[in-house]
Amino acid sequence: MLGVCYYPEHWGIERVEEDFGRMKELGIEYVRIGEFAWSRIEPERGKFNWDWLDKTLELAEKMGLKIVLGTPTATPPKWLVDEHPEILPVDKDGRVKNFGSRRHYCFSSSVYREEVKRIVTIIAKRYGKHPAVVGWQTDNEYGCHDTVRCYCPRCKKAFQKWLERKYEGDIEKLNKAWGTVFWSQEYRSFEEIELPNLTPADPNPSHLLDYYRFASDQVMEFNGLQVEIIREYSPGRFITHNFMSGFTDFDHYKLSKDLDFASWDNYPLGHTLVFLKMRGETKNPFDRVGHPDIISFSHDLYRGAGRGRFWVMEQQAGPVNWAPYNLWPARGAVRLWTWQAFAHGAEVVSYFRWRQVPFAQEQMHSGLLAPDSAPSFGYHEVKQVFEELKNIDINEPVKSEVALVFDYETAWVFSIQPHGEGVNYLDLVFRFYSALRGLGLNVDIVPPGSSLEGYRMVVVPSLAIVKEEEALETFKRYSGPLIFGPRSGSKTETFQIPPEMPPGLLKEIIPVEVKRVESLGTGNVEVLLWDGKKYPVTIWREDVDPTIAEVVARFEDGPGAIFRKENVYYLAFWPDREFLLDLFEKLMKETGHVVRRLPEGVRIQKRGDIVFAFNFTPEEIEIEIPEGSQMILGDHKLPPYSLAIWKETGR
Amino acid sequence: MLGVCYYPEHWGIERVEEDFGRMKELGIEYVRIGEFAWSRIEPERGKFNWDWLDKTLELAEKMGLKIVLGTPTATPPKWLVDEHPEILPVDKDGRVKNFGSRRHYCFSSSVYREEVKRIVTIIAKRYGKHPAVVGWQTDNEYGCHDTVRCYCPRCKKAFQKWLERKYEGDIEKLNKAWGTVFWSQEYRSFEEIELPNLTPADPNPSHLLDYYRFASDQVMEFNGLQVEIIREYSPGRFITHNFMSGFTDFDHYKLSKDLDFASWDNYPLGHTLVFLKMRGETKNPFDRVGHPDIISFSHDLYRGAGRGRFWVMEQQAGPVNWAPYNLWPARGAVRLWTWQAFAHGAEVVSYFRWRQVPFAQEQMHSGLLAPDSAPSFGYHEVKQVFEELKNIDINEPVKSEVALVFDYETAWVFSIQPHGEGVNYLDLVFRFYSALRGLGLNVDIVPPGSSLEGYRMVVVPSLAIVKEEEALETFKRYSGPLIFGPRSGSKTETFQIPPEMPPGLLKEIIPVEVKRVESLGTGNVEVLLWDGKKYPVTIWREDVDPTIAEVVARFEDGPGAIFRKENVYYLAFWPDREFLLDLFEKLMKETGHVVRRLPEGVRIQKRGDIVFAFNFTPEEIEIEIPEGSQMILGDHKLPPYSLAIWKETGR
Amino acid sequence: MLGVCYYPEHWGIERVEEDFGRMKELGIEYVRIGEFAWSRIEPERGKFNWDWLDKTLELAEKMGLKIVLGTPTATPPKWLVDEHPEILPVDKDGRVKNFGSRRHYCFSSSVYREEVKRIVTIIAKRYGKHPAVVGWQTDNEYGCHDTVRCYCPRCKKAFQKWLERKYEGDIEKLNKAWGTVFWSQEYRSFEEIELPNLTPADPNPSHLLDYYRFASDQVMEFNGLQVEIIREYSPGRFITHNFMSGFTDFDHYKLSKDLDFASWDNYPLGHTLVFLKMRGETKNPFDRVGHPDIISFSHDLYRGAGRGRFWVMEQQAGPVNWAPYNLWPARGAVRLWTWQAFAHGAEVVSYFRWRQVPFAQEQMHSGLLAPDSAPSFGYHEVKQVFEELKNIDINEPVKSEVALVFDYETAWVFSIQPHGEGVNYLDLVFRFYSALRGLGLNVDIVPPGSSLEGYRMVVVPSLAIVKEEEALETFKRYSGPLIFGPRSGSKTETFQIPPEMPPGLLKEIIPVEVKRVESLGTGNVEVLLWDGKKYPVTIWREDVDPTIAEVVARFEDGPGAIFRKENVYYLAFWPDREFLLDLFEKLMKETGHVVRRLPEGVRIQKRGDIVFAFNFTPEEIEIEIPEGSQMILGDHKLPPYSLAIWKETGR
Repeated sequence: MLGVCYYPEHWGIERVEEDFGRMKELGIEYVRIGEFAWSRIEPERGKFNWDWLDKTLELAEKMGLKIVLGTPTATPPKWLVDEHPEILPVDKDGRVKNFGSRRHYCFSSSVYREEVKRIVTIIAKRYGKHPAVVGWQTDNEYGCHDTVRCYCPRCKKAFQKWLERKYEGDIEKLNKAWGTVFWSQEYRSFEEIELPNLTPADPNPSHLLDYYRFASDQVMEFNGLQVEIIREYSPGRFITHNFMSGFTDFDHYKLSKDLDFASWDNYPLGHTLVFLKMRGETKNPFDRVGHPDIISFSHDLYRGAGRGRFWVMEQQAGPVNWAPYNLWPARGAVRLWTWQAFAHGAEVVSYFRWRQVPFAQEQMHSGLLAPDSAPSFGYHEVKQVFEELKNIDINEPVKSEVALVFDYETAWVFSIQPHGEGVNYLDLVFRFYSALRGLGLNVDIVPPGSSLEGYRMVVVPSLAIVKEEEALETFKRYSGPLIFGPRSGSKTETFQIPPEMPPGLLKEIIPVEVKRVESLGTGNVEVLLWDGKKYPVTIWREDVDPTIAEVVARFEDGPGAIFRKENVYYLAFWPDREFLLDLFEKLMKETGHVVRRLPEGVRIQKRGDIVFAFNFTPEEIEIEIPEGSQMILGDHKLPPYSLAIWKETGR
Repeated sequence: MLGVCYYPEHWGIERVEEDFGRMKELGIEYVRIGEFAWSRIEPERGKFNWDWLDKTLELAEKMGLKIVLGTPTATPPKWLVDEHPEILPVDKDGRVKNFGSRRHYCFSSSVYREEVKRIVTIIAKRYGKHPAVVGWQTDNEYGCHDTVRCYCPRCKKAFQKWLERKYEGDIEKLNKAWGTVFWSQEYRSFEEIELPNLTPADPNPSHLLDYYRFASDQVMEFNGLQVEIIREYSPGRFITHNFMSGFTDFDHYKLSKDLDFASWDNYPLGHTLVFLKMRGETKNPFDRVGHPDIISFSHDLYRGAGRGRFWVMEQQAGPVNWAPYNLWPARGAVRLWTWQAFAHGAEVVSYFRWRQVPFAQEQMHSGLLAPDSAPSFGYHEVKQVFEELKNIDINEPVKSEVALVFDYETAWVFSIQPHGEGVNYLDLVFRFYSALRGLGLNVDIVPPGSSLEGYRMVVVPSLAIVKEEEALETFKRYSGPLIFGPRSGSKTETFQIPPEMPPGLLKEIIPVEVKRVESLGTGNVEVLLWDGKKYPVTIWREDVDPTIAEVVARFEDGPGAIFRKENVYYLAFWPDREFLLDLFEKLMKETGHVVRRLPEGVRIQKRGDIVFAFNFTPEEIEIEIPEGSQMILGDHKLPPYSLAIWKETGR
Repeated sequence: MLGVCYYPEHWGIERVEEDFGRMKELGIEYVRIGEFAWSRIEPERGKFNWDWLDKTLELAEKMGLKIVLGTPTATPPKWLVDEHPEILPVDKDGRVKNFGSRRHYCFSSSVYREEVKRIVTIIAKRYGKHPAVVGWQTDNEYGCHDTVRCYCPRCKKAFQKWLERKYEGDIEKLNKAWGTVFWSQEYRSFEEIELPNLTPADPNPSHLLDYYRFASDQVMEFNGLQVEIIREYSPGRFITHNFMSGFTDFDHYKLSKDLDFASWDNYPLGHTLVFLKMRGETKNPFDRVGHPDIISFSHDLYRGAGRGRFWVMEQQAGPVNWAPYNLWPARGAVRLWTWQAFAHGAEVVSYFRWRQVPFAQEQMHSGLLAPDSAPSFGYHEVKQVFEELKNIDINEPVKSEVALVFDYETAWVFSIQPHGEGVNYLDLVFRFYSALRGLGLNVDIVPPGSSLEGYRMVVVPSLAIVKEEEALETFKRYSGPLIFGPRSGSKTETFQIPPEMPPGLLKEIIPVEVKRVESLGTGNVEVLLWDGKKYPVTIWREDVDPTIAEVVARFEDGPGAIFRKENVYYLAFWPDREFLLDLFEKLMKETGHVVRRLPEGVRIQKRGDIVFAFNFTPEEIEIEIPEGSQMILGDHKLPPYSLAIWKETGR
């Protein structure tokens, strides 16, 4: 189903009726409103202006549109900031961040939390049972503009309390956990502990990791406050939050537990550009459409976070304003993205935004309509999707052959001590994910500790910290091919090298011992020999004692590179794409599932027995469709930036 | 005529007489002194040391040298700063900038303004009618070292007042003008408004634009204070200020209105290097002489700002100290630059500085003399110019075939929301300007709203904000070819997209509608087809509905690229040099003026019926001189880094 | 002899005995302990925990290990910082640096100095005469993490006092010395002087130079305090400090005067990477072994600073954690480095660290043992060295053919006004040093003013400030080839251009005059013609009047490039490697000493009549060994990363 993000406060109530009418024509069912509108709702403390919002909801009800109401807590108004400047966040350099854009608040501020409770209660009470309101979005893009980690005095106090709870009031536990004997960092009480910024040398990594956890928890608590209130006053409505792509500053799985489903904001062009830049790549063949796997990674991640359910809450529908440069999308891209989201299980794709706003920060961010209300290119593609949707039932759940274990703490561990310039968890994960997708496999992205039952194969690009109670048991129970990447099991819960040496607890299932590791410079290319082929190894390599594991493959200079015990594999290096394609192809074959490599830029995704094929290239590409399949959309010739859908009758 | 910058306070009065004598021999008529000398004039509050300055002026009078007296306000002395630390500026990051170099003051500080009035009054009273004093320079290089925009509490208050005046005390006007409904940025009073720095996300662009205008106005007011006092106490003397090259942080046209003429400081090697770096160019064929068009752009700009009159107040005469690297100029370059300045209408070329100072920050900045008083290479070239000048009368005014409309607000609009990495107003302007110069055309650089009468062609690289009363009327009245570049008319006065869509008010004369725009990455090269040729398009492209305009040319993939209605053209892209050369050649021809491309590095400039040809290359280049011309200097073979001058008798 | 760095406080006393036993087996004689252990010694003010340290020393004594005791002053504990937050340092941007890593103190803090005196006295009294304690290390790596130069209010006061002493209480002397008349920077009292940070434009270079000297002196005083106390309470024990590589923020010669010998911390892989990066080089053929000359430069420098005596206090023995990327060393490298150190005169090579610590900041920094106590690769190589050492007597002093004058003030002068992007003193020095080493020459690195007697040749890559009493006299007395590089003699003691023009006082021995200088961009390659060959000149060039000196060589475009008067040479440019090899070869030959170029990556070093040959390449290399030599280790075929040692009987 289709939705749209809309800001009645920008246009005046007089235009809402017409806009709602046009939305209906376009097939829009859901309209998200209200996030960012605090100053319109409560222009000064205690004085409320409900008129515009009352009328908007009334019209929505009348016209049969379903409203997703956003809480306006991402933008506390000026009067509130002036009353309580202590809610402003402080950055890593110690600078207070000021009013004048958005997200100018500290998550742990108790003052701000009270204000949030107050405004959310008032709004939830007023509209919680309104027939037009079908659900809620809390706040907006938690953490955007680097706002998860605040370094204000309030955070310091809250962090001390958090530590006191974690270490059960015993400072010696913390001293031991952090190894503070090193460099005379020992503390005598929790009150002595500082925030880990502005130190002459690197802060203690255990200190940082606990601080990152604390900061992540603050977001969770902040969101939890809102959820609790909304649940009370708005029974039967869903609650979600719109996450971002490639953002790991808080644990999205944990936060999602409080939500009915996850949502995310899909801006393929900018996300692809930013991701490739992070990797140091200078060419971008997908610059007008986005890399299919960078996009679908988030679909699969948030489907996992949402326990099978997710929305695209904001879908790019034209050129945006925030990337290093801002191309307009290729013709067909908006339709392609929409179908791709549905193929990966999205329940709703909601475009951002209805109409380009001619003022303020995002005036160069396009909408379905231009500022003068003329339909943009994207508009017509949405229309086409709407028509196509009428004839297709895609409500089957996504079932995946492969699970990929993705872990926020591992992202933090890698970022705290990368040990080398190119060492980035997201890059490593993407290599695994993209190779699986290049073989046409459906992938579930799951947190450590999830049940792995029913998957043909499980890949763990890296899991730095293995917690017995959570992950290890699920790994032990799993009998299919289970592949661990480098640095797995390399740290204890408090960022120490495990006493039993890496891979720590994983030794139970893959009995090897990592003796030392190295990060490689751009000039260092090592060579892996496997199955008669040579593969380049860059970025990372480990020196591993196989102990009783089998050495499946070696580096050209001798030492083992791939290790195996029964169904479990350990890769002692940063794998390249070609190797992963070969490895996964072979392992899948061994499970009895023959896969084939898809052409560059072509992707397959299955939802029940419906198969989708996407062409993210500017060329027509011919694909093979199993005989007897029943075509639903398109055919075996995929036009540029287009797709085909069929039903596999033989499955 | 020739001048020099001199610092008697550095050398002691005993050396001044000898120095003045050598200046006379070299043909120097004007000597600028005094700027930066506050601590020598007033070593402590209220105690004055006039002796050295009295004697310097006395000697100047005796020896027939004309003094340009600088006000010393760029360098408040330590005692003043210690009395009033609140005059120190605050940078964007919130850091107070300290005493110890120069420009350590905030333009809006009322305390500092009082001090400025006091010292300028005292100096102007004392020397205003001195026979040696022929003119004044206010302060020095306003804005150097990024000092126009200050973020101190005084500026915040002053900005609030400025806004209150602009929006007539009506905060709702401001809220509407800035679109503060977006992201709950609404204000209830002017006292609530912050300075636009240290926000988590980008500040509101309207907020920024008004702040940039405010900051520009502060410079204007600061200068105005000084001008008013000097006018009172120094009747009949001129007042000027020495501007910089490529600097757009305040509106030089507006400030110049208070001056008798504009001056600027010409450092060709560094300016060329900095400009090419900004453009991302790595090669610099002009590294020992400077790019002729980068130099003459400022000549033409400040001739415009000075309403036909300008000086070069500081002319590089050897290697300097401040560029990323500092070559010495090619032999001949100092002479070449001097003649180039005269060709573009400079009244005086004043070298920086008389003698290299062996101490403090600029000790590696050369002068006409080395620290031991030995003549530098530049010295001999100045001598040559002096001899050559004796036989040449170049006092005719510069008349130009083409006007280029240059606008400071457009520079601010581009910098506030560039929308892409290479999108820079100065780069765009330079493309237009340099193509015109490459065709041998004289160019006037004028502000929007200037009369365009008498020009064969008018180019507007971009004019983001079109103000009806100013610019639009002059465009309407103009009947020659009038070419607008991209983003023209793209914003309202308060940085909104015009309700009628871009190009906004320009639609009256060029009825097209810009539907969407994109900025291009370095890998994106689009193709323009025009007149049987293909041209690359980089950086920027627009999607334009021609409405009733003629589509003159299209992009290779279909949409219109150049639009025309009668005499008015709109270019929906960032044009490349080759295209602009072809376009301007063709349009000039249509006006009956045949132009020819000059060899790379050769430039022609006319002053009355005197024609100058300059060779900025290390090779001899032969040029064509119209038959019957009367040679004044050189001949048709231009030696490396040299020139020829002739009188066109047939004109 | 061999040593190791050990942290009993990390492991608990119960493991010390076993560790000491294994050290003995490995041939370790010296164990450095205690630096960083303040919080373990004094967990709260006045409460001491001596037990672990008492027992450690007792065990050492019992087992015959010699202890080097570190003072723990690099890491003031939290309780001290909380009592006296004013000891925290302030960085150039004005930010207070916080507790949580190390080196969080200001060198000039009188409060901290009192604390340092207190703790050092207590420790020195307790252990000063302990039989196991043979020596002391003060603090740890002074200046690491950019901590020499602090910008706190205490430093401001102390700097004012320092200036008052230097300028004998006469502010006018300072005004003259700094040239404060420039830009009205004049001071009326020492109390007015600020620290040279946060100025809008560059601070006065004389101000900076004096501030750098002041900061260097603070380190000296801080160290002096400790030395004085240790001398009193620990008679007969040596005192040293572990310096870093390529670090010039304080004068290591001056500080070393208070020490018995110098030590340094040798991390070849990281140092090579950082040095090449500084030079803009992208290839690193020595990435797994380090550049031999980058390593031995520090050996030779600290042998000079230590007046013939030095240790390697920390020797990399495996992969480390702090470089841009962290490779493991090639097999053989640890042995190679150890022998290289001995060849250059090291008395002890002490590995860092005994066992990799599994927690805190340096957990990815390897040791001789892995965290689980398994021997690392390095361990076995140390074992090999220990065996080899048994048969070799290398106690002869290092005698060098060439002296290279290295000067910390010149490093400061270059960094304060580099005048161009690639202009770096260490790069210049390295060019001279590495060319000498490439010819198989032993090099002594000496401060200006050292006796130059007995050297066949003396090179001075640059000596910006020539002080009559110190350096000039030694140059005058020296009669061998004496080669000065560019910028020599270019500044007075207070950073002014000398009144007699550069090379200032050096004119007495090399009568030339530098008229002007230029720094070259990457695109500017000038050409030197010498001895029938052409050499590229980059980075720097000078325009020199030979006066009465001989012009030995010229630039291709005419002016002189190499000048000579009798035995003294002046190079008016930044020389390239090939030229320096040719020059030094020729000049050495003229002294009667024939040298030959060594293969790339091969180095020779002599200690008495023992000759060492090192192969830093991955290939076997054959070398020539003089007939009649007596082989001690290896032969003329040097295996990869290996060495040979022989006795020259004919010498």
